[in-house]
Amino acid sequence: MKIAVCAPARSISQAGAARVAAFAALYYPGVELIVDPQVFALAGHFAGPDGLRAETFLKYANDPAIDAIWFGRGGYGSNRILDAVMPELTSAAYDKAYMGFSDMGFLLGALYARRIGRPIHGPMASNVSEASKGVSVGRALGWLVDGDRSALEPSLRGRPAAAFNLVILCSLIGTPWMPDLTDHVLYIEEVGEAYYRIDRLLFQMANATQLKGVAGVRLGAVTDVPAGDGEAEFGESLEGMMTRWCRDMGVPYLGRARIGHDADNMVVPFGIA
Amino acid sequence: MKIAVCAPARSISQAGAARVAAFAALYYPGVELIVDPQVFALAGHFAGPDGLRAETFLKYANDPAIDAIWFGRGGYGSNRILDAVMPELTSAAYDKAYMGFSDMGFLLGALYARRIGRPIHGPMASNVSEASKGVSVGRALGWLVDGDRSALEPSLRGRPAAAFNLVILCSLIGTPWMPDLTDHVLYIEEVGEAYYRIDRLLFQMANATQLKGVAGVRLGAVTDVPAGDGEAEFGESLEGMMTRWCRDMGVPYLGRARIGHDADNMVVPFGIA
Repeated sequence: MKIAVCAPARSISQAGAARVAAFAALYYPGVELIVDPQVFALAGHFAGPDGLRAETFLKYANDPAIDAIWFGRGGYGSNRILDAVMPELTSAAYDKAYMGFSDMGFLLGALYARRIGRPIHGPMASNVSEASKGVSVGRALGWLVDGDRSALEPSLRGRPAAAFNLVILCSLIGTPWMPDLTDHVLYIEEVGEAYYRIDRLLFQMANATQLKGVAGVRLGAVTDVPAGDGEAEFGESLEGMMTRWCRDMGVPYLGRARIGHDADNMVVPFGIA
Repeated sequence: MKIAVCAPARSISQAGAARVAAFAALYYPGVELIVDPQVFALAGHFAGPDGLRAETFLKYANDPAIDAIWFGRGGYGSNRILDAVMPELTSAAYDKAYMGFSDMGFLLGALYARRIGRPIHGPMASNVSEASKGVSVGRALGWLVDGDRSALEPSLRGRPAAAFNLVILCSLIGTPWMPDLTDHVLYIEEVGEAYYRIDRLLFQMANATQLKGVAGVRLGAVTDVPAGDGEAEFGESLEGMMTRWCRDMGVPYLGRARIGHDADNMVVPFGIA
């Protein structure tokens, strides 16, 4: 099995790449992990210029010998290559898995909208460097390589699902890149946002015409909330916000989920797993 | 002329209210400025609970004796009363001016979408406390009371216009609260956002189906960019971002404008001034 690692947003370190290569060699010796040098490129905020990031993604997406694209890292920037890559995807791109989360939601959402390949919300190659002791990347490869169902978010239960970072979901709203999520359970998670910003994002989710048909919403981890901008200052809990906005949205709030910017980031394949 | 001050988002201070009342008494003695005590209320992040903020806005909007509602302050929260207030506005609300900016863009946009009254992007009552030495509030009252055209953003020139804080504009995208801005020049401004976030917001503006018909975009002030997240780190200037995203949007980038979170915040009436 061949898995390619590229970085459509920010770069990863040489040390991080060496660690994930070592991990794969140790536990998945049957996997050929191809880490493209583009992941180390630097251009301002990004892992190389838009053109290089687009070209690298297309090279692997359109290669029939590659079974999966495993995104290296999020950050910001994959939205800037959508225009360049989406119209250029060929048949090889359809028979392939794409795994990542956070900023990669732009690509996962746009792929799912066009029914291209198997977009999967899950840990990325750079998550090997976390305090997760290999659990995150082991889970990602467990699903990609062996279809290990213990890697899946436990509430999936055969219902159509989609998972997004909340900021990325809201950035897709009102654009043609947003997939149709009718009858899907929508999983959201957030990192580094003040409560008042989370509430504003939930307003947009709840009022989005495109999301009127979702079957329900689940909330994953909300991590790294800036000091002084949490529940105490805002005056409302996350559960309170979710309940109120889901009521306005007219869909059930289904409770918490195990996705997010932490080691407990379980796998959520788009559609039915 | 009767002008009511209410606060649909965050509260203002007693000192700020006293200052703006003194300013109006000094320079606009013919104006009866009614500062509702709701502006001092506190409930978590907000100037009182959603219900009180909605009720106070409706009380003045539906009062035929009130000529204008001058919003006290932005922050966050006016989106939370849209559902409660918009369907309750009566004929008196149509014959009235509404002035504010920043978070007040939720209300201005929703009013404009429904063709209710005269929404105006301009300084707020709490802007009396700034280093602007009264210039901001003088400009706001100059337009509201005397129709003083020197208060207007100089590029307006009789073309239909609308102005928004970029985050607020993007929060309206894909929702029924977004007005139709076909053939309007769109003015945007931002405060306190990292360059990568501004770029992400511009992506959404440029890709928004609802905004495809705008006549062009102008950029106001971009203030209080967090340290370490500006042009140097991002690798692209504001002009570069505007040019690129407006090109993708298929509309002309018309250059800079005098609106924003500073003392040079000129008045932009929605529609034709």
